[in-house]
Amino acid sequence: MKFRRFELRSLSLCLALTFVGMLFMSSMSQAEEKESTRKLRHLVVFKFKESAKAEDIEKVEKAFIALPKQIPVIKEFEWGTNNSPEMLDKGFTHCFLVTFASEEDRAAYLPHPAHQKFVSVLRPHLDEAFVIDYWAD
Amino acid sequence: MKFRRFELRSLSLCLALTFVGMLFMSSMSQAEEKESTRKLRHLVVFKFKESAKAEDIEKVEKAFIALPKQIPVIKEFEWGTNNSPEMLDKGFTHCFLVTFASEEDRAAYLPHPAHQKFVSVLRPHLDEAFVIDYWAD
Repeated sequence: MKFRRFELRSLSLCLALTFVGMLFMSSMSQAEEKESTRKLRHLVVFKFKESAKAEDIEKVEKAFIALPKQIPVIKEFEWGTNNSPEMLDKGFTHCFLVTFASEEDRAAYLPHPAHQKFVSVLRPHLDEAFVIDYWAD
Repeated sequence: MKFRRFELRSLSLCLALTFVGMLFMSSMSQAEEKESTRKLRHLVVFKFKESAKAEDIEKVEKAFIALPKQIPVIKEFEWGTNNSPEMLDKGFTHCFLVTFASEEDRAAYLPHPAHQKFVSVLRPHLDEAFVIDYWAD
């Protein structure tokens, strides 16, 4: 009888620990999700000059892609080239989506030396830039 | 002696179960992450006519925001209004980021009756639309 009671006790303890552990992990992932819902999107779209060669454009791409490692306030970063079939791109080809956690972080990014250095790589080949920022809802 | 062995056995069984459970949850969240990495972004930006009233624009917003519930191929949806300090917005104010899992899903979205109905709400108030799609890298 005593034996059974002990075994049951250790079993329920273990089950309780398992439950608490899973509850903890689930609340952790919910907290992560919540934190990531507040996003300031900084959308940058480029149209390059006709004189820009493929290697010039590649240099610009690489310089932009290198920024997240140099500028810690960049929370998320993604990019791609236009493949819309709708013909509403106005000649723009390159889209970069940079995400910040706050307007202060964006204010730190714009004059950041690494960003300014990137702009100097971009400028000779840029025809037009289009920029829209928004708090994602 | 027998009692101890039994208790140890049930303890290790429980620990093993805990471990397997946590491993399972962790692999689940990794799988979710992996699945969500392949994203076809469909970026839609509007400039409204000067004649568009606040309530007209609100109707357009509400009609667009209602689409994800009507069109299942929309994988993610977010939107916001421009707050960029850079003055490179060319008069565009509203940005919608619609995400698909494939080009087939986008092809199903564009002629979808719910999307076409939204376009008919939008058209009378639209000055210009700018659309860029890209596979997010």
